[in-house]
This record gives sequence, C-alpha cells and structure tokens, in this order.
Amino acid sequence: MNIRVYYEDTDISGFVYHSNYFNFCERARSELFFSQGLSPVNGDSHFVVSEVNGKFIKSAKFGDLLNVETDVMEIKNFSLKLLQTIYRDDEKVFEATITLAHLKGIKLSKISRETKAIFENL
Amino acid sequence: MNIRVYYEDTDISGFVYHSNYFNFCERARSELFFSQGLSPVNGDSHFVVSEVNGKFIKSAKFGDLLNVETDVMEIKNFSLKLLQTIYRDDEKVFEATITLAHLKGIKLSKISRETKAIFENL
Amino acid sequence: MNIRVYYEDTDISGFVYHSNYFNFCERARSELFFSQGLSPVNGDSHFVVSEVNGKFIKSAKFGDLLNVETDVMEIKNFSLKLLQTIYRDDEKVFEATITLAHLKGIKLSKISRETKAIFENL
Amino acid sequence: MNIRVYYEDTDISGFVYHSNYFNFCERARSELFFSQGLSPVNGDSHFVVSEVNGKFIKSAKFGDLLNVETDVMEIKNFSLKLLQTIYRDDEKVFEATITLAHLKGIKLSKISRETKAIFENL
Repeated sequence: MNIRVYYEDTDISGFVYHSNYFNFCERARSELFFSQGLSPVNGDSHFVVSEVNGKFIKSAKFGDLLNVETDVMEIKNFSLKLLQTIYRDDEKVFEATITLAHLKGIKLSKISRETKAIFENL
Repeated sequence: MNIRVYYEDTDISGFVYHSNYFNFCERARSELFFSQGLSPVNGDSHFVVSEVNGKFIKSAKFGDLLNVETDVMEIKNFSLKLLQTIYRDDEKVFEATITLAHLKGIKLSKISRETKAIFENL
Repeated sequence: MNIRVYYEDTDISGFVYHSNYFNFCERARSELFFSQGLSPVNGDSHFVVSEVNGKFIKSAKFGDLLNVETDVMEIKNFSLKLLQTIYRDDEKVFEATITLAHLKGIKLSKISRETKAIFENL
Repeated sequence: MNIRVYYEDTDISGFVYHSNYFNFCERARSELFFSQGLSPVNGDSHFVVSEVNGKFIKSAKFGDLLNVETDVMEIKNFSLKLLQTIYRDDEKVFEATITLAHLKGIKLSKISRETKAIFENL
C-alpha cells in the first residue's frame, strides 16, 4: 500500500499534519478489503476504531512516497488489534496500534469468518 | 459566522489549502440551519452542491479569523444560487457562487417553504 | 492517475464531500511533476489556484476507483488554465476548469520552460 | 472551546471520522494561544505531536456541539503531556493523552516561561 504525500496532507510546518497518519492507516485497512473485491462495509456491518496509540517517529513531507504495513496483534470475536507501521523507504515514520470493534448497526457483532480470514492471512 | 484558521486548514505553502475555502462556505450554510435549531438534513431531504465558481483573492494564514457572508442570488423551486464571500476584517479573501440542488433521497425535490424562508431572510 | 475513495473522502450523505473533488484534481496536478522526478514546488517557485469552476455531475461513493484526466486549455507566461475531469469508468463524475498563477515567493513569476513542457506534453 | 460538527467532519458511517477528534484537540490547543493574542508558532519555535493515545467512547454526529477540555498531565523542559477530553453536553465522547515536543526548527528546544505559563494556568 503506497501513499503519496500531497499538498492537502501537509500543514504550515511543511510536514504531514499529525492525524493524517491515522488516515493513511485507515486507507490501508480499507484496501485490504477492496483489493479482494470486498468492502469493509457489508450491509450494516462495519468496523469502528475504539482505541489508538500512535508514535510519531519521523516527519513525512510533501512528495514523499510512504508505505503502510499492517500486522495483526490479536483477533477476537468482536474486535481486532492491529499494528500499523508507516515507512519511507527503510525508515520508520509512524507506528500505531489500532483497536477496531465490529458493529452491526450500532451494536457489537461477531466478525464473520470471511472477514477474519482477510486479517489472518496478513 | 467566524472561522479560525487552524493547522489542519493550512498546507506547506503556509496558507489555507485552496479547497478548504469551500468547506468554510459549507459550514456557514449549515450554520444557517443549526443557528435556528434546524438541520440541513431533514429525513432524506438535503442539498447537494451542483456547481461552484470560486475566486481566490487573498491568502488566509494560520490563526486568521475569517468571516463568511452568505447572500442569495436566486431561489428556485428545486435549487438555490448563493454568493458566499470570505473576509478577513475588511479584506475580501475568497468569493464563490454556489449552486445547490435540493434532493429527497437521490431525486430532485421541492424546497420546503420553511427552508426557503431561511434563505429569503438573509 | 487513479484515486480510490476512502472513508475520509466521504461524508454523512454516503458520497464524496464536494470540495474533495478539487483535492483529487490537485493530486493529479502534483503527480504530473512527481511522476517525472520533479516537484511542483521548486525553491520558492510554485503555483497557486486563482480561480476554479466546478460541475458536480455524479456522486462518487466509498470504494469507487476514480480517474483524473488533465487537459491544458491555455498556457500563458504567468498562468495556466486546465480542464480536469474525474471519471468512474466511462462515466463523468466531476469537471472543473482550474486557473493557476505561478509565483516566486508571493509575486507573480514566469513559468519556466521546463515546467511549461510538462503541461505542453499532456 | 466549542466545536460544531459539520459535513466535512463526518464520513459515510454518519458519524465523525475517527482521526478528526485529534484535529478538534489540536484546535483547542491552538486556541489556548490565540485566545491570549499569542500563536503556537513563534518564529521557528513550535510544538509537534510525538505520541497520542486516544479512546473513542461515543460517536459524535452531524450538527453536534462538542466541547474540548484540556488538562495538563506533565510539564517538562522540552515536552508537555496533556489530557484532552471531548464532551457532548455531559457525555464523554473522546479522550486522549497527547505528548508534545517543543522544537526550534527541527531540534528539541526548551519551552519558554511564557509558553509554560499558558499551560500551568489551565
């Protein structure tokens, strides 16, 4: 999952605005589904972020080509915990643990076998 | 409608990212409803932007306090045309004509008398 | 220039937030430079958007894969006028004319021959 | 610090896009400076976010009026640790600990007495 840093991602500091790294991670999570012809939204079933822990290690700048790696820390029946790391070449730029709860409508709901498989195969 | 320019609104140029001026105009349109205890989304009735014409006159920067003025150019049964101008004190920063179509679901729908009144009273 | 629609690009309507189509156009303009190993920011020389005219034809939704086409309408010494069109497959979703002024610092400045060539070769 | 949820803050789920809560917290931090006629950017001195820990407790929706409270957890010579909480009326929506490093250019730099006072007085 390659992500180019565009004007809209930067701020007056000249670097990527801090919360946008979480957006880049979300793009990578969605692309796990899209790349298999699936969608992270299935009827009224979907994931919501319940907790994040992010470390800003280096600053990415306009034009940088970043790479998001997604690893599974824990798969439970109703939630997932991922480790997502953003690199610029070999350099670690950002690292986050992301906990996702699976909902149907607004209620907690079991993650389907098909969806679990997407993450188990990472 | 006062709007402060925050980090997230700026880009590497040090000024407000161009399309964010349209966001500021949208906030002002929504606030016309919210300030009267109403919402621009009423069941499945809502407005969509169908055409915009924007002139970027001055550059707003981090910390600026901007003011959005909204004037009505045309009220029709199914659409509205507005002139929205963004000022920093007396200085004109941005100016746009915005055409909005009124939908119910995904179909064109008559603007209600109550909603028309919001714009007629500007 | 392919662009995937992610969560962050959508709003409560379920479709792409209107001003984000301008962001997608900006990404395509920047990528014209990046794809040749250049940057739209060269020292203190860069472009700013001075006028836009956008027509919202169809609504793009979460997961859509969009394509931005950039055509030159006019190349002048200090400014450019582009026609940028966003497609989903064969369907036109958004169309905009974008006028860009070339600046050095905050002053109008001649577009270099190298930069002109990027646009002449589109 | 009151923040209205606008279209741009929401996504297809109908609720606020997760990383935007961090943006709301950043607005509140900047406003601590602006409200006193100061700026978080002072020459080439400024803060960068080095670590965040966020809990998404409730979902804010279009039109909600949110309130950001900022408390100091730790003030050190080169960094700050804040607890920022977002409420909708009495209901806690989001909570984050945010660690900020103080830089001059790209180097760690002592937080000035004047800036420390802003946070000590919270």
